[in-house]
Parts: sequence; C-alpha cells; structure tokens
Amino acid sequence: MSSKKLPAGIIRSDARLMDGRTIRYYDTKGQTRTAVDQRSSEEQPSIGEMRLDPLNNEWVVIAAHRQGRVFLPPKELNPLAPSKPGSLTEIPESDYEVVVFDNRSPSLAAPTSSFKAIDDPDFSSPAIASAGKCEVICFTSDYESSFKDLSHLQIRTVLEAWRDRTAELSELSYIEYIAAFENRGEEVGVTLNHPHGQIYAYSYLPPKTQRMLEVATAHKKKSGNILLEDILARELSDKVRIVAENEHWVAYVPYASRYPFEIHLAPRRRVPDFLALDEAASDAFAPIAKEVLTRLDGVFGVKMPYIASWHQAPVRTGRDLLSLHWQIASVRRAPGKLKYLAGSESAFGAFMMDLKPEQSAAQLRDVAL
Amino acid sequence: MSSKKLPAGIIRSDARLMDGRTIRYYDTKGQTRTAVDQRSSEEQPSIGEMRLDPLNNEWVVIAAHRQGRVFLPPKELNPLAPSKPGSLTEIPESDYEVVVFDNRSPSLAAPTSSFKAIDDPDFSSPAIASAGKCEVICFTSDYESSFKDLSHLQIRTVLEAWRDRTAELSELSYIEYIAAFENRGEEVGVTLNHPHGQIYAYSYLPPKTQRMLEVATAHKKKSGNILLEDILARELSDKVRIVAENEHWVAYVPYASRYPFEIHLAPRRRVPDFLALDEAASDAFAPIAKEVLTRLDGVFGVKMPYIASWHQAPVRTGRDLLSLHWQIASVRRAPGKLKYLAGSESAFGAFMMDLKPEQSAAQLRDVAL
Repeated sequence: MSSKKLPAGIIRSDARLMDGRTIRYYDTKGQTRTAVDQRSSEEQPSIGEMRLDPLNNEWVVIAAHRQGRVFLPPKELNPLAPSKPGSLTEIPESDYEVVVFDNRSPSLAAPTSSFKAIDDPDFSSPAIASAGKCEVICFTSDYESSFKDLSHLQIRTVLEAWRDRTAELSELSYIEYIAAFENRGEEVGVTLNHPHGQIYAYSYLPPKTQRMLEVATAHKKKSGNILLEDILARELSDKVRIVAENEHWVAYVPYASRYPFEIHLAPRRRVPDFLALDEAASDAFAPIAKEVLTRLDGVFGVKMPYIASWHQAPVRTGRDLLSLHWQIASVRRAPGKLKYLAGSESAFGAFMMDLKPEQSAAQLRDVAL
Repeated sequence: MSSKKLPAGIIRSDARLMDGRTIRYYDTKGQTRTAVDQRSSEEQPSIGEMRLDPLNNEWVVIAAHRQGRVFLPPKELNPLAPSKPGSLTEIPESDYEVVVFDNRSPSLAAPTSSFKAIDDPDFSSPAIASAGKCEVICFTSDYESSFKDLSHLQIRTVLEAWRDRTAELSELSYIEYIAAFENRGEEVGVTLNHPHGQIYAYSYLPPKTQRMLEVATAHKKKSGNILLEDILARELSDKVRIVAENEHWVAYVPYASRYPFEIHLAPRRRVPDFLALDEAASDAFAPIAKEVLTRLDGVFGVKMPYIASWHQAPVRTGRDLLSLHWQIASVRRAPGKLKYLAGSESAFGAFMMDLKPEQSAAQLRDVAL
C-alpha cells in the first residue's frame, strides 16, 4: 500500500491483486483503500511475442493466451464491478471512483531485463518478446453509466489517471509510446459493457503513429510549421466542420474524415502529451468532452458505438512534432447501418466515405442539448 | 454490342445498361448476348472528391451519393440475379456465367479530360475528383452458391475476367492500381449476399500498396532480392504454416498474420499481375482456391466471413518489386466470436493476434476434405 497526491486534490492509492498485479485507486474524498483481494492466486500468463510482418515492416503481437478471455459476461459476473461478499471482482474494494489495474490477459507485458528492442526492423529481424504494458481503466463503478454521463469531477479524475499513467509508464526504459483508448459498444467488439478504457504502453511506435511522425517531420521541413497547429488553424478558418468550442479546446469533424461520425478534439495551445496540459485546459476538458459525446449519441437518438483514442507525442522522439489530441470515430452511418472496413479499406487502406464531413458536422451541431 | 476471344475458349460480349454503363458477359459456350436492358433510364451519380488526410498524407474518397444504396435486399429483389419478366435486375440476360458491370454507385469514376493527379500530395494539396473505376463481378448466376462451390471452368472464367479487366483498366491514363476483392458475409458488411466481388481501379496507389512498395524497394536495395520471393522461400522452408500446395501455387498462413484465419496464396513463379500469369498457373488456380476456401469453412463447420483480396504490382511503377498474390482474411476467431479491430488496431495500427499462425495453419490442414 502506498499513496500519492495528484493535481485537483486527487489521491492515488495502490494495492496488490492476488497474482501480483497492481491496482491504483484515484479518489477525490481522501478515502483509505485497504481491502485485500480475497481471490485465490493465479499464475500470470507468460509474455507473448512480436513478429515482423515483412510485407510492410510492421510488428504484429501474438498473444495466444488471450483467446479464452471473458466475453460479454452477465451483469452479476461483471469483473469491473466493486467486490461484494460472494462476488469477488478485479476491484477488491466495495466501491471506487476511478481505478487503473494491470490487464489480466495483457497483449504486452514487462520484459525480462535482457530485452532489447530492434531499431530498424526488416525481413530478417527475429521475433522478440512483446514488451509493453496493458492496463484497464474503469471510469466509474456504475455499470449503467457512460463517459458522457460522468460528472465534471469524475472526468477530471479520469484525466488525472491518464496523466499519471503517462508519467509513470514514460519512465520505463522499454516504453516508446503510450496510448489511451475507449472502445464502446458491442458493434466494435467490446467484451465488457462496464464503462472502461484501456491504456497500452508499446515498446515500439505503433504503425499509424510512426506514419504521422514521418508526415509531421516532412511538414516541418517544408513549411516550418507544426502539423497539428496548421490543421487546427484550417478547421478554425473553414468553420463549417467545427462541432464545439470552449476557451481551451476545439472539437471538429476532420476535413478528410474516414468514419461517418468522426470528431477530433484538440487543445488550442499545442502540447505533446498529458504531462504538459495545464490546469485550465485540464479543467475545461470535462464540459466539452460531455458535450461532444452527447451530440454524438443525439444524432440518431441511440447509444453510438465508438472508438475514442488519445494520440500523444512518443515518449522519446517527435516531442516537438506530434501533439495531444482525442480522436472519436463511430462506425454507425444510419440507425440500422454500420460502416464496415471491407476490401478497399481493410486490404488496401483506401478509405471510402459515404457522408460529407460538413454534413456530419452539421448533424452533430443540430443536436439539441 | 461487341465480342472478343479470351484464353481458355472464353468469349467476352459487351452490352450497354439503361444509363450508359457497360456490362461484360464472360461465357464458355459461345452464347449470344443480345438482351436489352428494359429498365427506364436513370441519371448517373456525379463524381465524388478525394481529400488528403493531412495527419498521414493519405487520400480519403468522399462519395456522398453512396449512402442510399441497396442494403441486404430480400432474395426476390436481388439486383445481381439474371432478369426475369417483371423482375429486371442489373443483368438484362435471363441467365449468365460470369459478368462484370460498372458499379451503379461508384466510389471512383471516370474523370473529365482535365483531370490531373497530384504526385506528391501534402497538407496544402486541394481536393480533387475521385478518379477511378468501380466494377462489380458476379461469379455465378446462382444466388445460393459460393466461390468455393464453383466448377474449375467457372473459376477459370472468373480469373479470365480479372485478367481482362486488369488489361483494359491498365490502359486508362488515370489508373495507377487495380485491385480485385471479395467481401463475404454480413459480418464484414456485405450488403448483397449473391456471390460477387469488386474491382477497384484507383488513380493513386492505395496506402497499403504504397507502403508495401517502399518496403519491397528497401528490401531489394539491402538484399538484392524480391520481397515476395524471400517470403515464399521462408514459408516453404519453415513448412509449419503451409496449408496447401500444388505444382504452381502455395497457400500459407503468413508468419506474422493479423487475423485469426489468414491465408495467402502465391504462385511459385513470381509475376507482377494477372497479365503475366501463364496458362499452366491459370489452370492450377481453381483446384487450390477451392481447397483453401473449403478448409476455411471447415475449421468451425460454418460459412466463414472473409475478405479475399488480390494484390498486384501497380500499373506504372514497382513492376519488378511487387507481385501478384491473394490474401484471404477471416475475422472469425471461434464459432460465436469475431475479432474486431478496436483501439490498438483501428486507431494505432498495432495488431494483436489471439491465435498463433502455426496453430491456425494446423487447424486448416486438419480439415477433412
């Protein structure tokens, strides 16, 4: 047990789970977290491997131990609920605000001390251990809630948890990139309906981040400018795709969006990652996040499936080129219809969009709040 | 009306549909195709636009006219069936073997003569017309059939149609890449259950092809070798992931596969595209294609959803670096479970696989034929 003070009066308390994993409670009322995990101990799965896909020089993680993981359990077996006598879950306490714990079936895991990354992988690179960390973040103990229904304080607590995890994971020598994302809805493959997200700390630059870094580097060289600053300036000048704004954040449907409903949320003042986000911008996030997600659910009056992903600068490179922003993408294109990534998108990476970004932005703006 | 002799005794006959689109019949028995499209004329949708996604310098096609297209119609309204009195479809004839017709709601369309591609697009590139061609290929007139149930002659006819389309589309000045793919199963978003595929001719290199070309170029420079030849040599030497072989083709689960069941089928003698595939390899495709798809459906004893995509060398570049091969990817990981591309895959491009490629290959080999 240990505890630590974070911004906004939030206290982090750590505890151990039965198999040695760590759980971190993020609290706003000075709670003491002493509950012991009563479950019997269980062996941790061994680390998987990464193999290089030679057709595009991208790592693919093979985590065969994940095949048997929990799949849409009934509410009474929800592993993300607080524990009750007779119903022991991943969270030993009988209540919580926000928790982050190490994933029980991680795709990426802490490597042995002999781990060595491969800098410039190619066809002849051997398979290596899939080094990294996978954590689960529960946004609330309320199974029926949703990110958009959280209070401002609750969202600020989630943001502090993201910031805290980014800070701590950035210090691990084998971590190159930290991603936080939420998958919502069975339509995008969610296996647990409890409001939660994931934190993935990769020992390599994920392919899309690497590509973004290459493009931002070329843009800097050509124009002298920071790519995301130019993007934000264009969105503000075009106006037609803006969905919501406040003093510190701008939400827009991107000029070349790939999903029927896609929203990017960026701070007005560019920062590389959560660590550099100041107090005022941190406070201003909750109201605009709630607004944007409420507009999204309002378009068809149904709970929209989405993937909401935080993009940050990598830990060790491109700190002045890549920028913190939130990408929310929904595959729902009409009340009974989803967009699927079929042949052109999935096999060739060529996206075809059925909806004009300007039209989708207007539909989002027209939602009565 | 015009007709043309193709290899294997196949005759192509062309006809016009009511709105000016072309339909091509590929026949093996010397049929005459004279049926006139009886439907009333309809305006063709206007061409859409392509915008550059500035975060990764990739074109996104915006085809807003596609939103209202036909969605899983009942069998009696199947637009890919032959026409009958009182039931007029996309195919005016009362029967057919294989047909290819211009898509009624194309994402990519023939540009005006003033179209000019943008060679090295970046943030400041303007939107341009989404030049290209989208065609539909019907593998059989039998709604209940499937690619794997076609006869050898029928599959050869489909292959000749792919080859013929590649030849003709390659001659258009604005076409850079020709892809042929089949999406099967409502799980991957198929909107028409009739056995059919699509042919997309792009006016740009699709992002995944561009990446493959960069990697193959670097591999050639470093090793002097052709990437796909080295990949095939490794699969043949490792043996454990081979699924099927014949004198001209090898089917394997790739070393770093991304989907629970993924099979690549490559000719033993490397060719850039369909045009260079010789008579013997063309004839040997049908039996191994049927075997591979039958094994895929046999793994769980259910019709598997899949995306089967033909990768070729681009029309004008990388002809000696990229190679014809067929990638079949299924998202079904267990009888009741699908793999979804969630946060890590979809937002960051980092693939996590639950199944070892060697295990998946063994399951495919173990299917009793």
